[in-house]
Amino acid sequence: MPRHFGHIPGIVPGATFVDRRELREAGVHLPTQAGVSGSATEGADSIVLSGGYEDDDDQGSVIVYTGEGGRDPLSGRQVKHQQLVRGNLALAVSHRDGLPVRVTRGSRHTSAYSPETGYQYAGLYRVDDHWREEGKSGFFIWRFRLLSLESAFQPEVISAPSAAAVRREMVTVQRLVRDTAEARRIKALYGFRCQVCGEALQTSAGPYAEAAHIRPLGAPHHGPDHAGNLLRLCPNHHVLFDFGTWSIADDFGLIGLPGKLMVHPEHQIDPAQLAYHRARYFQP
Amino acid sequence: MPRHFGHIPGIVPGATFVDRRELREAGVHLPTQAGVSGSATEGADSIVLSGGYEDDDDQGSVIVYTGEGGRDPLSGRQVKHQQLVRGNLALAVSHRDGLPVRVTRGSRHTSAYSPETGYQYAGLYRVDDHWREEGKSGFFIWRFRLLSLESAFQPEVISAPSAAAVRREMVTVQRLVRDTAEARRIKALYGFRCQVCGEALQTSAGPYAEAAHIRPLGAPHHGPDHAGNLLRLCPNHHVLFDFGTWSIADDFGLIGLPGKLMVHPEHQIDPAQLAYHRARYFQP
Repeated sequence: MPRHFGHIPGIVPGATFVDRRELREAGVHLPTQAGVSGSATEGADSIVLSGGYEDDDDQGSVIVYTGEGGRDPLSGRQVKHQQLVRGNLALAVSHRDGLPVRVTRGSRHTSAYSPETGYQYAGLYRVDDHWREEGKSGFFIWRFRLLSLESAFQPEVISAPSAAAVRREMVTVQRLVRDTAEARRIKALYGFRCQVCGEALQTSAGPYAEAAHIRPLGAPHHGPDHAGNLLRLCPNHHVLFDFGTWSIADDFGLIGLPGKLMVHPEHQIDPAQLAYHRARYFQP
Repeated sequence: MPRHFGHIPGIVPGATFVDRRELREAGVHLPTQAGVSGSATEGADSIVLSGGYEDDDDQGSVIVYTGEGGRDPLSGRQVKHQQLVRGNLALAVSHRDGLPVRVTRGSRHTSAYSPETGYQYAGLYRVDDHWREEGKSGFFIWRFRLLSLESAFQPEVISAPSAAAVRREMVTVQRLVRDTAEARRIKALYGFRCQVCGEALQTSAGPYAEAAHIRPLGAPHHGPDHAGNLLRLCPNHHVLFDFGTWSIADDFGLIGLPGKLMVHPEHQIDPAQLAYHRARYFQP
């Protein structure tokens, strides 16, 4: 069974569970011991916060989660550096690929949001940052910043000083890139290389890739979210495609750029979507 | 006075105004006739929806706005193609730079969200898409998709077919890039070229550039939003910087990449922020 990312049908944020076994049976978090459910290739689909990591910091919609490893099993104290492997690497991959992570809090987790008993599902979060730092123990730990994707989630407000020295609030979001199961399949097909320039961006969490919709999703375009409407591009060529600097002919010749689109034999690109992009986005 | 992007202090979404003059006096929308307030260099800071464009489509948190120009002044009918100039170009620049746009609806604007009389401020939106299409008139029109940034704003939900043919909902957001006044100043300083590779991404809305924070904004990093903590990078080098594939020495030599960071004499990069990035993000 493929790893399930996103909500479990029928389980809404706020749902409570008596113990880890119940959490497992509901499909929310399959491992009965590990805090992170995930793999280094697919990413992390779920975490459970259940106390123990003195470096965790839970502000509700923003959680700074401490990675695993390096602790003495008896005392629970940090006695070695944490490595970017297993659950830590899975969370880094979720960051890289923009995957949603289910978050559940246990009663032993110290925060204002923890349930009094058992476990409570908090909903979906995304990993928006990960880094390494010296923990309270003096050893390196990995940390992951998780932002809630639930309805309580507000766009981040950034204060910027104005000319008149009045603190004004400015909300800005530049680029949102979506990643779905189909998008992940297409990215893997190309070995994470850009179909235009062949570039593969290497990170410690593996190669970074973006999937671009040829005809955009959502109203009024209603582009389909299937492989025939997807391209695997590096961020630079993705931006330029979305802004119509280049497009693609039916024979996959590039328009506005030299060369030809690399197309994998298993990737059936839909000519109708290419025609849509040429007519509406390409700027000669 | 510099163009003001974002909310006007003291004016909350839902605020009403008797007429365009009152809207102007409040600072919400300065032009008394034009639907778009903005310039081709700075972007659009505000629009007023006040009827007339049969191609507009207002779904509340998602608005498809039709550009200006090409209409006969007497009949109001579309008699020529619209061009990507003036207000249209200003909105395209807001898309390119991720700037927030104030949206106000007038009573003559046909939608379920329009006020019965006068004008009503709807809050901030971002332009997430723009394209050209044949309007109902048969002439090309420019269209802009605006998404609400207000609290009613929900992360977009994308339905993806699961293996079990159950429609499950998956919310994914990959990369959010912020753009503030300081970021815009730094981008302009470099002629929109990447400080690593010198690349300038050309679009019909002008050069596309991203500003990267060396030490991230927000908890727990609390990086400052000033020029000393900013870099001007292409999207590819921005991703790789955020993921720690490369970093910067105090003498601006690149670490993990060959070469040296290009630094403009007026750009004082703060060595403390570079040290923060090297210690926490760079992966040797």
